[in-house]
Amino acid sequence: MPSRPGPESLRSLFWPKSVAILGASNEPSRIGGRPIRYLKEGGFPGPIWPVNTKGGTIQGLPAFKTLDELPEAPEALIVAVPAAAVCDAVESAAKRGTRAAVVFSAGFAEADEAGKAMQERLVRISRETGCRVVGPNCLGLFNSRHGYAPTFTASLDHGHPKAGVVGMVSQSGAYGSHLFVLTRDRNIGMSCWLTTGNECDVDVSDTIAYFADDPETKVIAAYVEGIKDRDRFLSALERARAAKKPVVMMKVGSSAVGAEAAVSHTASLAGSDVVYDAALRQLGVHRAETTEEMLDVVYAATRGIYPDNNRLGIVTISGGAGVLMADAAERHGVDVAAMPDAAQARLKAILPFAAVRNPVDTTAQFFNDMSLVTEFTKTILAEGGYGALAAFVTAIPRNRETGGRLKEALAKATADYRDRLLILCMLATPEMTKEYEELGYLCFEDPSRAVAAFAALARFGKGFARGAGSPPPALPSGAQPIPAGASLGEAEAKALLASAGVPVAKEGLAGTAEEAVAAAESIGYPVVLKIASADILHKTEIGGVRLDLADASAVRVAFGEIMARARKERPSAQIDGCLVAPMIKGGVETILGVVHDAAFGPVVMFGLGGIFAEVLKDVTFRVAPFGLDEARAMIREVKGFPLLDGARGKPKLDTEALAKAVSALSVYAAANAVTLRSIDVNPFIVLERGAVAVDGLIETR
Amino acid sequence: MPSRPGPESLRSLFWPKSVAILGASNEPSRIGGRPIRYLKEGGFPGPIWPVNTKGGTIQGLPAFKTLDELPEAPEALIVAVPAAAVCDAVESAAKRGTRAAVVFSAGFAEADEAGKAMQERLVRISRETGCRVVGPNCLGLFNSRHGYAPTFTASLDHGHPKAGVVGMVSQSGAYGSHLFVLTRDRNIGMSCWLTTGNECDVDVSDTIAYFADDPETKVIAAYVEGIKDRDRFLSALERARAAKKPVVMMKVGSSAVGAEAAVSHTASLAGSDVVYDAALRQLGVHRAETTEEMLDVVYAATRGIYPDNNRLGIVTISGGAGVLMADAAERHGVDVAAMPDAAQARLKAILPFAAVRNPVDTTAQFFNDMSLVTEFTKTILAEGGYGALAAFVTAIPRNRETGGRLKEALAKATADYRDRLLILCMLATPEMTKEYEELGYLCFEDPSRAVAAFAALARFGKGFARGAGSPPPALPSGAQPIPAGASLGEAEAKALLASAGVPVAKEGLAGTAEEAVAAAESIGYPVVLKIASADILHKTEIGGVRLDLADASAVRVAFGEIMARARKERPSAQIDGCLVAPMIKGGVETILGVVHDAAFGPVVMFGLGGIFAEVLKDVTFRVAPFGLDEARAMIREVKGFPLLDGARGKPKLDTEALAKAVSALSVYAAANAVTLRSIDVNPFIVLERGAVAVDGLIETR
Repeated sequence: MPSRPGPESLRSLFWPKSVAILGASNEPSRIGGRPIRYLKEGGFPGPIWPVNTKGGTIQGLPAFKTLDELPEAPEALIVAVPAAAVCDAVESAAKRGTRAAVVFSAGFAEADEAGKAMQERLVRISRETGCRVVGPNCLGLFNSRHGYAPTFTASLDHGHPKAGVVGMVSQSGAYGSHLFVLTRDRNIGMSCWLTTGNECDVDVSDTIAYFADDPETKVIAAYVEGIKDRDRFLSALERARAAKKPVVMMKVGSSAVGAEAAVSHTASLAGSDVVYDAALRQLGVHRAETTEEMLDVVYAATRGIYPDNNRLGIVTISGGAGVLMADAAERHGVDVAAMPDAAQARLKAILPFAAVRNPVDTTAQFFNDMSLVTEFTKTILAEGGYGALAAFVTAIPRNRETGGRLKEALAKATADYRDRLLILCMLATPEMTKEYEELGYLCFEDPSRAVAAFAALARFGKGFARGAGSPPPALPSGAQPIPAGASLGEAEAKALLASAGVPVAKEGLAGTAEEAVAAAESIGYPVVLKIASADILHKTEIGGVRLDLADASAVRVAFGEIMARARKERPSAQIDGCLVAPMIKGGVETILGVVHDAAFGPVVMFGLGGIFAEVLKDVTFRVAPFGLDEARAMIREVKGFPLLDGARGKPKLDTEALAKAVSALSVYAAANAVTLRSIDVNPFIVLERGAVAVDGLIETR
Repeated sequence: MPSRPGPESLRSLFWPKSVAILGASNEPSRIGGRPIRYLKEGGFPGPIWPVNTKGGTIQGLPAFKTLDELPEAPEALIVAVPAAAVCDAVESAAKRGTRAAVVFSAGFAEADEAGKAMQERLVRISRETGCRVVGPNCLGLFNSRHGYAPTFTASLDHGHPKAGVVGMVSQSGAYGSHLFVLTRDRNIGMSCWLTTGNECDVDVSDTIAYFADDPETKVIAAYVEGIKDRDRFLSALERARAAKKPVVMMKVGSSAVGAEAAVSHTASLAGSDVVYDAALRQLGVHRAETTEEMLDVVYAATRGIYPDNNRLGIVTISGGAGVLMADAAERHGVDVAAMPDAAQARLKAILPFAAVRNPVDTTAQFFNDMSLVTEFTKTILAEGGYGALAAFVTAIPRNRETGGRLKEALAKATADYRDRLLILCMLATPEMTKEYEELGYLCFEDPSRAVAAFAALARFGKGFARGAGSPPPALPSGAQPIPAGASLGEAEAKALLASAGVPVAKEGLAGTAEEAVAAAESIGYPVVLKIASADILHKTEIGGVRLDLADASAVRVAFGEIMARARKERPSAQIDGCLVAPMIKGGVETILGVVHDAAFGPVVMFGLGGIFAEVLKDVTFRVAPFGLDEARAMIREVKGFPLLDGARGKPKLDTEALAKAVSALSVYAAANAVTLRSIDVNPFIVLERGAVAVDGLIETR
């Protein structure tokens, strides 16, 4: 099958010159009637061709009885006929020249096996003709700047979208409509909106990639239940980051019940949530937990300002609100840094009762003297060096007289700072909000939500500045591939890991007690002896490990005992002898792991050993491969990090050697994605100088 | 000074028969004019007596030149004159018979020393006359059912409060007004509202206690920056819990910056936030992080239904919304329990495509057949056994035709279940919201917020059912008091703890090596030797501890070495000899502690030892004293709890013995609150049978 075209092919989907509606209806509330009504209401500039077996006139437009009767192939085709008729229609239109089809019809993969077969045929038609297909079983899309709304969502009944910078894509039609209504209610303008339905062709990743390139779209919002192709998903997100367009995503299905419902809803595989979380963080996506949070961050992003620091200057007319905002700042990792001393002194001279450190509080005195608001606000902007200003003015804007004076005072304060992030927290009418927005303010009712939105913008700013971070290192030239289907013993696994650049304790395989002594002499005492057998995975359980052997005679005795015990406990195991390894003392035990995730393929885990991993689940993940920067971030984000960093009077350990190992492991895992099931490097001991794997396990597929 | 009267004395504050305004103004926007205007607008039923040196007519009412000219003492007095004139006025009115004064005037303790002295005089006047005083430096109060609004908040400009069940008290006037406006905007009715200002007399605790008794108030909302009297605060909250009235509180100042701002704002002492958090949880208070969360929970509580379980039945018209709500449920500890099998089967028979487990999804099919909504919703209510039903219907209520049919379908479904908690998530106008509220629905826009609010109601339900839990045990009759000012050595500290009911390892003090051997023989080998000296707190540092001594000769050698070392390292220390204690092996080390908190007095801490306490800060607090229930809850809520409960193949330890020790410690700490600075029982080792303190430190004040 030909490969999938690039995101530029979605242009026909959003900007067609002409459109036909198959299954057109004269009734403007029917599935085949709504898009015609919306196209007419929206002022779609090209021809609109209703197609209906009855012909005649539909919603005032001359209708055609078949697609073939059309004067030419429509660039886009809207399909609102029963499932059985869909494939033939799309195929014939596509062969004639149609470049995009929006299929509303249900009854495909979500229904039964026959539907699944029809959907597969639709994919083939799309690939062979290059005609992009949205759906089937979707609610359609719109492009606000083209008057183009091939959708049957009832949400357009109450008003068409306002043109703006937000591109939105949703895997749920109903929730996508819900999000659109919220966006319109909050007066946020949108560029395009698309619901993907069954995603036979056009999916969330395609749409994000299109938005990343689309000059009309500056902010990307996505509602996701599950993704099927990790590479395209990750590269779409990377494309958005490179274009410095923030992606705000709801990825639902984090709970056990939620994930179950998500699967039944979209027939797509919801990867384990912790991996989604890691992948989205890694790509700089803001994952919103709630719809409200999503809308808040999207709204804030429409200003297009991503500050280069996370310091917030706060001015209030109520000390209480300042305290509350400082609390919210701490929760969201926002820095309420103090004003410079000189600025503090100046404000204090103006109003001795005022708090001037930050949060700055004009006190109720501003009622008598509005110049306080101007002076205090301006000083924060001019001298604070803050990523944003947040002002809290409660319901004052509603007051007949004070409200007007306040607006003037604030307008005066910020006139020279329109390029800065200005946030206003107030209780006001939608009209007042619009007025303040025209002055350049982002308006929020709840001050805590305003602080949270600022935190998100500052994270985007940091992420855009950093970009993709350091690239994954090259796979070492001597790296040995992981063989398919083989069962690997500890020695083999460690040899593979060593070849991949993960430091492994020097060790020798001994078939006899004397070989063991020779190996120990070469390694240096004290040593550890471990049973060597691909058939025995859990060595300790059968007494197959002996620690801290100080001399030749101890090694001899231990060798004999281990072999005897192993033969007794596992009589059918193929036993190669004993591994002799140095006894490593000190340092901190960590765990490096790789798992093959259903959605994201090889994923690397890092955590501290023992109770940290087992009881506290204090581990972190990244999608492989990645460079040193990500590895360093992983190490720092586990709660046990202080133990590596000199807590409790212990020395600082070599976290740089650890980061190199984690990154090298990720590169090796990605290179062996096809054969690899899992890797377990446990313990991986981090020392004052260097770090070393003491045990390793590789499972293949 | 006479003691403070009980909460019933606040009745004159909220329900006076007559009121005078000192400093009355004819200008209705002035501080002395607003209350007159509001009293007239509100329809206050009693006489309103303006008092102004100029006399004449004020806002249409005959004014008096002095308080003395009034025909009788007003039950309540509003004071809007400069600070210097306040005390004399309140004193003369109170002596004549006034029972409540609301003092707007600023310039008291928040200003300077002279103001502080005036405020102290005001307290004395209040105590001596029994006249309750709100403020000074406050914004006043209102009682919606009495048309009584002695306040100068501008927020009443836009409408008087609707009568309802929410009682609100705020330590910030500006933020209290902000909260009132939000409450009115959301159409939530209120009983009373009060801002406490400087809290010279009436404070947050008084007001909560009054609301606990007030038949008009069913829900209590409080905005708190700091409290000064823990006993009255805790007893007010306990009173509210006993009355089964939920308390929703914002306690700001959780961040370092926030706490600093809070102190500068109210001149009250903000206790350390973690202790506030513990105390509020202990008393069943819902601590809201954001204003929005506070309003959500208050709103939900106005239904007065506190479910006896935290299971939520969800019905949606969009699978996506169901997933999202299930995710939110998991975050908030809400159980999305499956529907009974029979009910699932019946719904599946009606609509084979539907999800029927929970969340239940009617799919878009309900558009064609509204009876699905009725049937599905009714089945959840009748058969699910859920604490609440939450329905998600996106913006459908706004649709001209479908919206009406939907309302009918939902009304039919819930007609027989008006006594149940019904939650509707929708995008609608305020008018539609009102209509659904009249059908018994709580209406939310954001489904995640709806789930969070339900979680809060279910926690209240659980808290009301449980009440105060098991009472603190009695102090053992042999408990020895902690002496003031003394420096206590380990042996003394352990003797005190043992007398208090905290199990302590049996041990002996030995002045000579032979006494040490005798003690060891009596305790049983192996033993531990520790230097015994009140002057040496950190024994290990000077080599003053020797572990695992197996026989008499080891004890003799160790004794000599410890004594020699101690004399060398601390030549001026008074040394009593060595403590001989059993060497305890196995078990898990925990830490029990007591600290004297500035706001809450003795507070008990519990955590696991080592990295759990030091690196992970995995500890929990309670205000002393408390019973076994709270102690058990503390033990279960630390993250390391699995280590006590048989994690990693280890045996379950005796957490009941641990709980008894924690509770006994709390009782002992409370009994010695005056002399106690801190207690550190570290380690307190929990064994398979029993638990024992191995070291103990008591600091006195």
